[in-house]
Amino acid sequence: MSYDPTAAFDTAALQAKASSHLWPHFTSRKVLNDGIPVITRAEGHKIYDAAGKEYIDGLAGLFVVNAGHGRERIVQAAAKQMQQLDFMPLWSYAHPAAVELSERLASYAPGEMNKVFFTTGGGEAVESAFKLAKHFWKLKGQPMKHKVISRSVAYHGTPQGALAITGIPDMKKFYEPLTPGGHRVPNTNFYRAEEMGAPTELESFGQWAANRIEEAILFEGPDTVAAVFLEPVQNSGGCFPPPPGYFKRVREICDQYDVLLVSDEVICAYGRVGDFFASKALGYEPDIITSAKGITSGYVPLGAMIVADRVSEPFQSEDNTFYHGFTFAGHPAAAAAALENLDIFEEEGLNERVREKSPLFRAELEKLLDIDIVGDVRGEGYFFGIELVKDKATKETFNDEESNRLLRDYLSPALWEAGLYCRADDRGDPVIQLAPPLTIGESEFAEIGGILRSVLKDASSKI
Amino acid sequence: MSYDPTAAFDTAALQAKASSHLWPHFTSRKVLNDGIPVITRAEGHKIYDAAGKEYIDGLAGLFVVNAGHGRERIVQAAAKQMQQLDFMPLWSYAHPAAVELSERLASYAPGEMNKVFFTTGGGEAVESAFKLAKHFWKLKGQPMKHKVISRSVAYHGTPQGALAITGIPDMKKFYEPLTPGGHRVPNTNFYRAEEMGAPTELESFGQWAANRIEEAILFEGPDTVAAVFLEPVQNSGGCFPPPPGYFKRVREICDQYDVLLVSDEVICAYGRVGDFFASKALGYEPDIITSAKGITSGYVPLGAMIVADRVSEPFQSEDNTFYHGFTFAGHPAAAAAALENLDIFEEEGLNERVREKSPLFRAELEKLLDIDIVGDVRGEGYFFGIELVKDKATKETFNDEESNRLLRDYLSPALWEAGLYCRADDRGDPVIQLAPPLTIGESEFAEIGGILRSVLKDASSKI
Repeated sequence: MSYDPTAAFDTAALQAKASSHLWPHFTSRKVLNDGIPVITRAEGHKIYDAAGKEYIDGLAGLFVVNAGHGRERIVQAAAKQMQQLDFMPLWSYAHPAAVELSERLASYAPGEMNKVFFTTGGGEAVESAFKLAKHFWKLKGQPMKHKVISRSVAYHGTPQGALAITGIPDMKKFYEPLTPGGHRVPNTNFYRAEEMGAPTELESFGQWAANRIEEAILFEGPDTVAAVFLEPVQNSGGCFPPPPGYFKRVREICDQYDVLLVSDEVICAYGRVGDFFASKALGYEPDIITSAKGITSGYVPLGAMIVADRVSEPFQSEDNTFYHGFTFAGHPAAAAAALENLDIFEEEGLNERVREKSPLFRAELEKLLDIDIVGDVRGEGYFFGIELVKDKATKETFNDEESNRLLRDYLSPALWEAGLYCRADDRGDPVIQLAPPLTIGESEFAEIGGILRSVLKDASSKI
Repeated sequence: MSYDPTAAFDTAALQAKASSHLWPHFTSRKVLNDGIPVITRAEGHKIYDAAGKEYIDGLAGLFVVNAGHGRERIVQAAAKQMQQLDFMPLWSYAHPAAVELSERLASYAPGEMNKVFFTTGGGEAVESAFKLAKHFWKLKGQPMKHKVISRSVAYHGTPQGALAITGIPDMKKFYEPLTPGGHRVPNTNFYRAEEMGAPTELESFGQWAANRIEEAILFEGPDTVAAVFLEPVQNSGGCFPPPPGYFKRVREICDQYDVLLVSDEVICAYGRVGDFFASKALGYEPDIITSAKGITSGYVPLGAMIVADRVSEPFQSEDNTFYHGFTFAGHPAAAAAALENLDIFEEEGLNERVREKSPLFRAELEKLLDIDIVGDVRGEGYFFGIELVKDKATKETFNDEESNRLLRDYLSPALWEAGLYCRADDRGDPVIQLAPPLTIGESEFAEIGGILRSVLKDASSKI
């Protein structure tokens, strides 16, 4: 063993190697030049650097480690599976862990969603759903239905099909032309309803936002639109929950125009908003669910697409095969880790815990609303965004230069220094994103709130 | 633990569950209706079903398990890493295993290729290379360069960017429109040179095939072409090695027209053709290498894109960020498993073993050329294809119906029944694909040859 994960690491040496050889993701060269932070250990809701400094994992890795770090039973489940069967693809073959997990996921899904197509992660799940939607309509005699509608600033992944669904122009422009057919509608950022020219009463705003999907379908022609991709609670932009009635209206629109409703739950599934699937928690029945991240709590890479019976129906004919797959999808160790992870959810009541304690987490964060630059606190479950503004009365936001200075130059390093790993994001208006492991409670809420108060107050005074 | 991978499984019960809930990859519904094969255990170069029946793993899972099954030290390396640090993304952060692995991979790469961008698998590596090529040329002031050239029948993955590079029309037509810009040239199937209207002398054929890339670049306009994607030895279609001089000429063409050369080594890297990278074994220097599969021998999902300095150079400015990433890419357990796997390669001399024993494997398979339907045996390293023909003298191939009957109805079940897991593939002309773990030797070559002889002779008599 030339590499030992428990060794005493030399941070400077690792940073130098990283600077020479590692190309980190979505990362400015400046981060490498400054010395990239190196995380060497994790336990519970904490992560640690080589110097032993600890940080609250306010982001569960990246909306991933829902059952918390250092779960020996998940490690053992994965290891035991690897010892027994290390690898077998799902290409015309099956292995027990994938079969058992497919049954378990179908049992958790809303409505009649019985078929599970595994992937290695979220982007692949979104690609799979996009491809399945196109294939489905071709088999249903509507081959022109290939376009997809999604929301402004929404993130749906980086492969070029998924990226065509992603609603963040700066993340796409260097890679154009992307897969054709992506069209955008407004998201449900109620805090910005007025400047969107939308109703400022919540339910009316929700109907307005849903009806913009109908408008887009009509603009493009219903016989060319295959699917609408929506997160239950949109992450990018800073946690936009759906207004009451929004998904009911979206479902009506999709039914009226023969458009598939894809619930992209890569972030929201597996407890993040208090149920195994967020669509179930929020009371709507999608045609396809895409999921990943929390399915194994991140111990082994895995994703899953769950498909409604009416969409899988044409593929039950021996004449129609979904010509799609990924070598590592539904990996035995990943499926075994997922089953153990879901056992933890059941035994420890993590979904119920999130539903019960979410109001306390929200209340803690809402205390921050007395700080000058804290404009809005919003979210669901253990998933919150804090929008930062220049002027709370007018909701004026920061310009690009100010936002850069605030988030990258000040807030990110200051929060890190203060021991909180979370995300200061500027893919829409500047926000702080929080999505901790689902195992934390009141004392950790208070700790997170305390760090945020201190750093945001200080930032407020510096603007 | 509600799931135990070592349990005594009830195959019929698992097949029934799979039929209800599991959507396997690239799989006809017929397979589920007939009872999908369920693999429960693997050890060395063997895989086993629940009844304890053993099969030679002639495909290393899916060109994956290069160091062989049941490697306890890889399991322990992954488990130890998970216990210490279960998950941390590479999004502006690093962890030691990814850093160490990036340095190791750079040390193995040909030429000056020093930057490593991790993914979760091969399709994501190809997507990453396609996006990087577009981004690179935009930064170099050539924003129109976005098209990609690849070879007929070549497989480069299933996300919609990678799929645009894949050269198999039947795998794409249901998902059109794909990412724009994919263009095809002939592959290096020398056995079919005559019917391609190409020279029938090997080196001349290679120059002809390489020059078809130049032709395609000129057809499209060099200022619109970003990259050429080529496998060192093309898998789909049945193992087409490059003729002598082919890659030298391709490199010249790419240099002449400012087109990046991407070596898609998802199958060929990590020992498959006798070196860590096949481009090094075959003596050419690509601009980007894409890899996955054998990097961990499949114990944990991982992929890696390795980038030449001249391509990473514009991204060394703090102004230019590659806006791309995957949550699970470069997973700690995957990187730790890869390092241990590469240690095994070094300690057991697996690359050297492949180079030494490949001629013996080839000789064993070439014995099959006396069977009526065996038209051609070709390959490199531990990677061979056997092309089946209706008439050996004329090289007449089977029509679709015959091919289906031969491969799906007869050969696949007969080989399986006889205890050999390999792949009877009809994405081009019908072929049997072999890519066993790199740990096998003479006695297993003979065993594989024996099964193939018996089944192919029987098939021959039935046509």
